[in-house]
Order: sequence, then C-alpha cells, then structure tokens
Amino acid sequence: MTDENCVPVSVIGLGMMGSALADAYLRAGHRTTVWNRSAARADALVGRGASRAEAVADAVAASDVLVVCVTDYQALYEILEPVGAALRGRVIVNLTSGVPDDARAAQRWARSLGAEYLDGYVMAVPSGVGLPQTLLFYGGSRAAFDAHGPTLRVLGGNSVFIGEDPGTASLYDLALLGILWSSFAGALHGFALLASAGVPAGALAPFAESWLTHVVVPGIGQAARHVDAGRYATDVSTVALNALGLAKMVQASESQGIRPDVMVPIRDLLRERAEDGHGDEALASMIEVIRRGPETGR
Amino acid sequence: MTDENCVPVSVIGLGMMGSALADAYLRAGHRTTVWNRSAARADALVGRGASRAEAVADAVAASDVLVVCVTDYQALYEILEPVGAALRGRVIVNLTSGVPDDARAAQRWARSLGAEYLDGYVMAVPSGVGLPQTLLFYGGSRAAFDAHGPTLRVLGGNSVFIGEDPGTASLYDLALLGILWSSFAGALHGFALLASAGVPAGALAPFAESWLTHVVVPGIGQAARHVDAGRYATDVSTVALNALGLAKMVQASESQGIRPDVMVPIRDLLRERAEDGHGDEALASMIEVIRRGPETGR
Ligand SMILES: NC(=O)c1ccc[n+]([C@@H]2O[C@H](COP(=O)([O-])OP(=O)(O)OC[C@H]3O[C@@H](n4cnc5c(N)ncnc54)[C@H](OP(=O)(O)O)[C@@H]3O)[C@@H](O)[C@H]2O)c1
Ligand SMILES: NC(=O)c1ccc[n+]([C@@H]2O[C@H](COP(=O)([O-])OP(=O)(O)OC[C@H]3O[C@@H](n4cnc5c(N)ncnc54)[C@H](OP(=O)(O)O)[C@@H]3O)[C@@H](O)[C@H]2O)c1
Repeated sequence: MTDENCVPVSVIGLGMMGSALADAYLRAGHRTTVWNRSAARADALVGRGASRAEAVADAVAASDVLVVCVTDYQALYEILEPVGAALRGRVIVNLTSGVPDDARAAQRWARSLGAEYLDGYVMAVPSGVGLPQTLLFYGGSRAAFDAHGPTLRVLGGNSVFIGEDPGTASLYDLALLGILWSSFAGALHGFALLASAGVPAGALAPFAESWLTHVVVPGIGQAARHVDAGRYATDVSTVALNALGLAKMVQASESQGIRPDVMVPIRDLLRERAEDGHGDEALASMIEVIRRGPETGR
Repeated sequence: MTDENCVPVSVIGLGMMGSALADAYLRAGHRTTVWNRSAARADALVGRGASRAEAVADAVAASDVLVVCVTDYQALYEILEPVGAALRGRVIVNLTSGVPDDARAAQRWARSLGAEYLDGYVMAVPSGVGLPQTLLFYGGSRAAFDAHGPTLRVLGGNSVFIGEDPGTASLYDLALLGILWSSFAGALHGFALLASAGVPAGALAPFAESWLTHVVVPGIGQAARHVDAGRYATDVSTVALNALGLAKMVQASESQGIRPDVMVPIRDLLRERAEDGHGDEALASMIEVIRRGPETGR
C-alpha cells in the first residue's frame, strides 16, 4: 500500500541490487516507479505494485528522488545523458559501485546539470537491503542527505554521511571490501593448509570465527591507534618476528603443496619494513611501506 | 605457595613466552623449576618462588613434565640433545612454534629417546597465558594429553587436542596466523586508502570491527560449508564480479598513491579461477586455485 507520507521514488536499474532496492521502497509504502534496460526485469516488481516507466524520461518525471544502481558509471551516463535537461532539481542517489575518481566525476556532471548528487555504497548483499543494521556510506550533497534521511534509511538503517567529497565515501567502501577480500583469502588459505592434511574446513571454522572475533578485531582497533599516533612501540609482536613467521608460512604452504600467493606480499612488505630499520616495531607499522606508494616503493 | 596436588613442572627457555608460562605455573601452585641459556633471565622468576636449575640436566631431573619454549627447533635440539638419555619417561611439552615437518621430526626424535612428546601452539601473546579462554592446539601423544590435562590447562583453559600427528596441530596454528596476517594486512591497506584522503584510521576502525564481526565472520562459516561440499553455487557474489572489484581496488590504490601489493594476488587468483570457467561460482571457490599447488599452478 502506498503511504502518502512517503516521497515517490524512481529506481533505475533492476539487477540483483536494484531489484532489492525497489522492493524495499515498495515494502515501505513509497510510490515506486521502476525502469530497466531489459524491460522484463521489471515485471515481478510491477506485479508487487511498482509503476513501470516505459522510458527513462518517465522514471525521471515520476519522482524527485532517483535511485540509480547499474553495473558501472559508464552505464549510468548511457542511461541519464539523453535525459540530462530533465535532471535539473532532481536528487540523484547513485548506488553504483565505483572508485573515487568515478564518484567525483559523476558529482561534477550532476552539478553541471543542476541536479543534487549523492553517491552511496551498499555494504550488504541484496538480501540485506532494508534491514535496520544495514550499512550504507554516502558522500556528496549534505543538504540532500539531511533532507531525505527517512527515504534513504529505507535501504538500510545504518546510513552514514561521510562528507561532501564522494570520493572519500568510495574509499570507505573500498577499505571494507579490501578487509573482506583479504580476510577471506586468508581463511581460504587456512582451509587449504588443513585440506592438505585431510582436515575439513568445518573443523577450522569455529576456531577461525572465535580468533577473528577475540584476537583479530581487538588487534585492528589497537593497530588504528598505532597508525594515528604514528608510533609503533611494542613489547610483544614485532615486524621482525612476524616477517620470520611469514617466511615459514610460505615455506610450509609450499611443502604442503599449496600456493603461497596470498602470503607472499605480506612477507615481503614486512621484510622491507624490517630492512628499513623498523624490525622492532609493531605489525601495524607495515602501513608505512604500503603508504609509500607504487612509484616511490622499490 | 606450592600445592602438593600439582605435579612439578620444569620450564626450559625463559624468553617472553617462556617466562609467562613459568609464571602461570607459579601462580597455579606448581613446584616450578626454570632454566634459561642466559641465566639472568631466571632471576625474577626465582624471586617469585621458582627453583633455579643450574644446568639443563637439573631441570630435566626435577620434573616429569618438561615445558620447552625457545626460538626454534634448532635451539630445542641444542638444549636437549646433550641430556638425551635422561629424557626417557619424561613428557616433553614443546611450545616452540614450527612448521609441520619440524613438529614431526621432533616427535620421532623424542620417541627414539623413550620420551613422550606433545607439540603445542599458544594462540595468544604472553599476557594471555593462563586465562580460561586462551587457546592452545596440541598434537602428539594423546595419552600424555589425557594424563596431564589439568597441568596443560594451567597455560590456557581452551587447550585442544588435534591429533596424534603434531604436524596437523602446526597447520591449525599456521591457518590462524595466516588469517591474522591477511586480515591485518587488509585493514592496514584500508587505513592507508583513507589516509590518502586525510582520514584517520580511527574513523574506519569501528566500521571495520563491525564489518568483520557481522559480515566477514558469518561469511567464513558459509565459505567452509561451500569448501567441504565442494559446491560453490551462489546467486549473490560471484568470482567474476569480485575479480572485477579487485581490479578496481588495485587501480584505485595506485591512483591514491598507495601500494596495491596485498590485493594483487587475490585479484590474480580470482581472475585465474574465472578464466578456468568458474566465474559464476561463489568467492570460496578461489580455494581450488590455492589448492592447486606451487608446481601445478602456472
Ligand atoms: N549484488 C551485490 O551484492 C552488490 C552489493 C553492493 C553493491 N553492488 C553494486 O550494485 C551495482 C549493481 O549490481 P547488481 O548486483 O545489481 O548487478 P547486476 O545484477 O549485474 O545488474 C546490472 C544492472 O545494470 C544494468 N546495466 C548494465 N549496463 C547497462 C547499460 N549500458 N545501460 C543500461 N543498463 C545497464 C543492467 O541492465 P540489464 O538488466 O538490461 O542488463 C542491470 O539492471 C554494481 O555497481 C555493484 O557493484 C552490488
Ligand atoms: N611472544 C609471543 O607472542 C609468542 C606467541 C606464540 C608463540 N610464541 C613462540 O614461542 C617461542 C618463544 O618465543 P618468545 O617470544 O619467548 O621468544 P624470545 O623472547 O626471543 O625468547 C627466545 C628464547 O629462546 C632461547 N634460545 C634461543 N636460541 C637458543 C639456543 N640456541 N640455546 C638455548 N636457548 C636458546 C632464548 O634464550 P636466551 O635468553 O639465552 O637468548 C630465549 O629463552 C617461539 O617459537 C615463538 O614463535 C611466541
């Protein structure tokens, strides 16, 4: 049922994520207009009460708030460039994932057309859309974020405004994705080590979960404090000791017949830090090598 | 105060970890004999009630249970080879970290001398020794583990016997260390990304902690189920999509002036999996490439 207190929303792009976004608006009682390049993908949503826009221009005309979620920024421009003049005064909420330069370019483009621009990052899979704990990072127009708070929170209760530079919101997204990828790669490496001795992944999983929760998570908080202080004193676990440990890890992985690839750069970054004379510092001081950049690093 | 119900223990090697082990035995009321190559490192423990062994042979003579914790297995042999004959009937609890081949060789060596052998891995820093939740993995003699349960649990309440092959206990240790290193490296990469936009690590840390707890940890449990089933069906987050995401991550890291090293092998392993025709599978299927081994991989 459409709720008259809710502002109308158009959702453009009905892939896995876009469909979940449109569904969340329908469930929340927003008058929801939907458009997708392949029109058939709108059918189920229309069956649940969405209005079908025959053309993008119809979707733009139907609502002040335009939620866009497509594969990449190239697709965003292909869809919206042809209706550019109609975007004046509209709020574009772009939930397409990109890198900082993409986000900044889209903000300039939207401003040039007189549209307000918000760049958002859904930190969840489609089934997580619309839950109170679901996290979204936003960057861009603070005025738009403040004006449309209830509408944005329909997609996730934990909607956070990072700043006017949408590139920074994109960096938060990348940072969390990087943690996901690296942790996953480490866990898969661990599962592979145990598989080499015939032990199932399920035997390690409870230890891995408890280890992440009780050792890794507090350690990362501590690392953040080290990084922000720029001081890396430790009497426990030094760069030099961990560099040795990683060298053993790479050797043991090879002895067990598995590829050490995931561990190799961590070993090398720590080794480099130790060779730079910082072997007695805490693990977190590895950031100084990462930060050095692709050009100035050797 | 020494408790007559506690068996005497000798602790050999009083570095950061060995000193913590000896302290735990003193606190628990065990008659504790200590020996260290550099004798002065025993002074504080002797002040708190430990008996000083002037020679290794005295430490071996004083207790049936010999806890050894030194830098590496080479040091273990250097210390105990000269007193080999006296080890008959003793229980060697070796908490020196090593790789599977080290552990198996030490087990053979101890058996050849008529000693019982347990290979243990303290999954904590020295200040965590002796807590009820502290995890230690053990491999080797099940009889020794069962007979000395209360004595072993003095070092950590969560003492787990993995199996008779001490190499497998070593793999559990390596697996958790790998998760720690990779998660840390990912978090430091994230902190570096944000630092490139002037954002402190402390601004990301709470999001990183919540993300690890609520997204990564459940995801790793799910990945274990995928791995053990050998089936990687997903309708959410595929190898191909994540490979693209990682390519963007590497590019964005370079654009921000930081080194992408930690992310590069993850991108390449996923790319390889996609090129092998498994692009539509879940992220966990990356293990099939890791498992392929250093020789058979390209
Ligand atoms: N799925 C997730 O778990 C997830 C999580 C967080 C963020 N995201 C982000 O959400 C965005 C969409 O992801 P998704 O999972 O929904 O992808 P998807 O299922 O592959 O859907 C892609 C959508 O983009 C449209 N599209 C692509 N190129 C187009 C073009 N040139 N012109 C018009 N439409 C075009 C597709 O239209 P057709 O149907 O006509 O092909 C489809 O609606 C991505 O940026 C992704 O990174 C996804
Ligand atoms: N520290 C941790 O957080 C931690 C955590 C888990 C596991 N571990 C493992 O525990 C073991 C010990 O670590 P640690 O932190 O205690 O190291 P440490 O503080 O550097 O102490 C090393 C110990 O080994 C002795 N040693 C080394 N070579 C020797 C030799 N050839 N002959 C006789 N003694 C020798 C040292 O004696 P001297 O005093 O005479 O040099 C010292 O007692 C390592 O395998 C480590 O991986 C440590």
